[in-house]
Amino acid sequence: MTRERLYIYDTTLRDGQQTQGVQFSTPEKHQIAQTLDKLGVDYIEGGWPGANPTDSEFFDEVPQTRARLTAFGMTKRAGRSAENDDVLAAVMNAGTRSVCLVGKTHDFHVETALGITLTENTDNVARSVEHIVGQDREALFDAEHFFDGYKSNPDYALEVVKAAHRAGARWVVLCDTNGGTLPHDIHEITKAVIEAGIPGDHLGIHTHNDTENAVAGSLAAIDAGARQVQGTLNGLGERCGNANLTALIPTLLLKEPYASQFETGITLEALQGLTQASRQLDDILNRVPLRQAAYVGASAFAHKAGLHASAILKDPTTYEHIDPECVGNARIIPMSNQAGQSNLRRRLAEAGLEVDRDNPALPRILEAIKQREAKGYTYDSAQASFELLARGELGVLPEFFEVKRYKVTVERRKNKYNKMISLSEAVVVVKVDGEKKLSVSESMDEAGSDRGPVNALAKALAKDLGRYQDQIADMRLVDFKVRITQGGTEAVTRVIIDSEDGQGRRWSTVGVSPNIVDASFEALLDAINWKLLRGDG
Amino acid sequence: MTRERLYIYDTTLRDGQQTQGVQFSTPEKHQIAQTLDKLGVDYIEGGWPGANPTDSEFFDEVPQTRARLTAFGMTKRAGRSAENDDVLAAVMNAGTRSVCLVGKTHDFHVETALGITLTENTDNVARSVEHIVGQDREALFDAEHFFDGYKSNPDYALEVVKAAHRAGARWVVLCDTNGGTLPHDIHEITKAVIEAGIPGDHLGIHTHNDTENAVAGSLAAIDAGARQVQGTLNGLGERCGNANLTALIPTLLLKEPYASQFETGITLEALQGLTQASRQLDDILNRVPLRQAAYVGASAFAHKAGLHASAILKDPTTYEHIDPECVGNARIIPMSNQAGQSNLRRRLAEAGLEVDRDNPALPRILEAIKQREAKGYTYDSAQASFELLARGELGVLPEFFEVKRYKVTVERRKNKYNKMISLSEAVVVVKVDGEKKLSVSESMDEAGSDRGPVNALAKALAKDLGRYQDQIADMRLVDFKVRITQGGTEAVTRVIIDSEDGQGRRWSTVGVSPNIVDASFEALLDAINWKLLRGDG
Repeated sequence: MTRERLYIYDTTLRDGQQTQGVQFSTPEKHQIAQTLDKLGVDYIEGGWPGANPTDSEFFDEVPQTRARLTAFGMTKRAGRSAENDDVLAAVMNAGTRSVCLVGKTHDFHVETALGITLTENTDNVARSVEHIVGQDREALFDAEHFFDGYKSNPDYALEVVKAAHRAGARWVVLCDTNGGTLPHDIHEITKAVIEAGIPGDHLGIHTHNDTENAVAGSLAAIDAGARQVQGTLNGLGERCGNANLTALIPTLLLKEPYASQFETGITLEALQGLTQASRQLDDILNRVPLRQAAYVGASAFAHKAGLHASAILKDPTTYEHIDPECVGNARIIPMSNQAGQSNLRRRLAEAGLEVDRDNPALPRILEAIKQREAKGYTYDSAQASFELLARGELGVLPEFFEVKRYKVTVERRKNKYNKMISLSEAVVVVKVDGEKKLSVSESMDEAGSDRGPVNALAKALAKDLGRYQDQIADMRLVDFKVRITQGGTEAVTRVIIDSEDGQGRRWSTVGVSPNIVDASFEALLDAINWKLLRGDG
Repeated sequence: MTRERLYIYDTTLRDGQQTQGVQFSTPEKHQIAQTLDKLGVDYIEGGWPGANPTDSEFFDEVPQTRARLTAFGMTKRAGRSAENDDVLAAVMNAGTRSVCLVGKTHDFHVETALGITLTENTDNVARSVEHIVGQDREALFDAEHFFDGYKSNPDYALEVVKAAHRAGARWVVLCDTNGGTLPHDIHEITKAVIEAGIPGDHLGIHTHNDTENAVAGSLAAIDAGARQVQGTLNGLGERCGNANLTALIPTLLLKEPYASQFETGITLEALQGLTQASRQLDDILNRVPLRQAAYVGASAFAHKAGLHASAILKDPTTYEHIDPECVGNARIIPMSNQAGQSNLRRRLAEAGLEVDRDNPALPRILEAIKQREAKGYTYDSAQASFELLARGELGVLPEFFEVKRYKVTVERRKNKYNKMISLSEAVVVVKVDGEKKLSVSESMDEAGSDRGPVNALAKALAKDLGRYQDQIADMRLVDFKVRITQGGTEAVTRVIIDSEDGQGRRWSTVGVSPNIVDASFEALLDAINWKLLRGDG
């Protein structure tokens, strides 16, 4: 049986940029375009040339992609020809092989927002599409508010999309612009459009996630016959975002009936780069990746419940709908349950510690983890502290230095200009190679503002570690997370510190104490000890 | 036309706790239960009594709720009677009116995971349900892996759920445990179950978000006839989470065909508390609320695109599928903050401050909130700090006392028994009624262990406030949450403090600073000032 071709249209660079707080630079747009192209999407919508400088700049140096790079714009305005519309001209001048224009199909919007007649609007759409086709380009028509328009005036909504189709549009894209149409309605209305004469292999679907149904709405349109689907990586986009391609693509490639029914431009091999593509976009945006994201989230294949975790060890298909490796993700069985020794040995191996199955330290390590987790520690993410704890039990943890004592002071008072200021100061006393070393630091950033006691402690601790000083010179604290948690009967503070070094290593450590300064200090010490274990400068 | 009753079943406290990194304390579980009850869900699944200490503790002091509090467990094991199964007994002993038991319906799991015969399993399910019903309780049966089971062996899957139904289960809940079933299949299989003889008003649906279709899958089951829907606030839950009630509830109440078809226990008035309920849960979990969340996200009604923003100003329905106020959210239009004023007046009224529509302080308060939120403050849950800020702008905030300065020291060193100990000490200088007062406290609990600098500061601050001393004598700090957040370009620390007094009042305050001690001190000051405003001893 021949499989039907289904086209993936990415609009991360255009609609994705409508996300609150998102503004890509031109190099970032190029980087994302390369990632999308490597993944194998069919179309990359690059932006609206002429609408803002970054979009124009992006098209000035069109990247070489296998995917069709598409310029976005709007249909010509009333009262002038397509040739004489300067906004449309800027879009055409980007010189892309494909051009996508948005236009109105909802009578209310035509009359209220544009203030023109329904006939004028239909004519604008048809003439604009003809203009693109006349220049030997591929034309796409984004039918804005199509579903709301169809509910309000089906005859008119159909008249506009049929006009675009007749004028030669390769794709008529049904857009649920406000994101409020539920999947069932999308299915019915898409079917009605096909029955009205536009073939499904000329129909696209563009949904938004305002009811958390964007993915389902896209699938509903595909079920009805649409053969192009639009969306963005990580579901970026205005308001609640667009249909999330990071969730849609694996569903279309891996799950039935789609996997057997369709062929796309994305190979199963390229699909294994999906998790990385998703995280790379978050890195560009300086966002913390969503742990719970479908397919690509760090928790997507994490099995916490005791019953589930033990079944997973017998057979992964018991609690997994796909193999995580298909999308480049990984299974996580947290230590916090009795998942047991095989899981522990796997984690030790990841830390470079090969331990025999019958090593008597294994049950001791599990017991130590259990006891510490009862006190409020967590080793799900603090892999470096886990390694130190395990090394302690295995007898392979050197003592690089010893902390004798420390003292931190925070003072808040008026300065000589009668303004309230704060000052933090830390003294740390360590013993290295038998020698006692006192260090003192205060916490002040370049702007002269106090960064607090933990910062002061970190500085003092790292100030003089004798012959180890060079080895920690390139490490820095990049994140600091604090949670109040229940350790036994009393609330305690849990601090997780993320550190980084010049070789691009990133590691997490944990500290727990009723005293937040103590908890931070413990995590700081682990961070330094882990770095010293790696032993390079 | 009479509307059909649709039941909402919340499992935030049970399945939601399977989220990686989530571990509610017992007081947190009580707080969430109260929020859910205020919202108006029909069932609150509180946990698995006997499976872990927190769950057992929660049921020891069953909260008074209008919603049915439900204990969760598993069907009896083979080879013993329901009466003699200690795991089941622990669940029954929680004494709840409703009991929900999970059991297998997938032949593969029965034979592989349990290693018993199909007949034994069916019998376990039937006997367990009979046991609940025999004790005059309401029985619910969670049919684990039902959809996968139905695909593998429809006759057997149906046999099990029919046995549960015949045994008297008020609800048979079809669970898509692995989260891999797509909405279309959920629809077809739910229809098949109804055709096989279990009426829709005895059928529930429980989905997971592994393909980002949990909400759509729930709607598909409701479309097919199921009349109970399970989910969690903010879509918490194992792996990618459960069906997100925060998205489902507004869709069911506000959007067609559901709004006309169904009656739920949730009023349109209670629905206006949804955004706050969602953010409160994030505060408890110390999570950053998801901006793009459907309905309740800070970006859900943010209109960035120029064309959209100008149309919204003409008529909000042009780019909004519902009115944001229906869910207690607010429209955001860059360069315009006329949104929010009515919302602001509603919050002021909640604090007992009736403010006229044309009061010039209203835009000032909005502006102050906006500026402080840009610095890292949050007022969604810190209602007491919000009230103090508003009172300041309204000119109705008395100055009870002034803090002149403070100093805190944390020291860690060996004691005379050569054991590492820590000590925190705080000095606070305040001016009350023109009189300067110096107080010093150290932080030591009954067990002689150090509770840290914030505790020492709180004690010193509350030690002598002159004539206000009696008024604060019955207040205590019950929770303390810390998050590192972005205030402008630098990371800052946000502290939220929950306080309680002898009259059962509970209030939250917020402080922000790069210095964690400063941030805590600011939140402490707000907590005391709010208590003094209430003016009673």
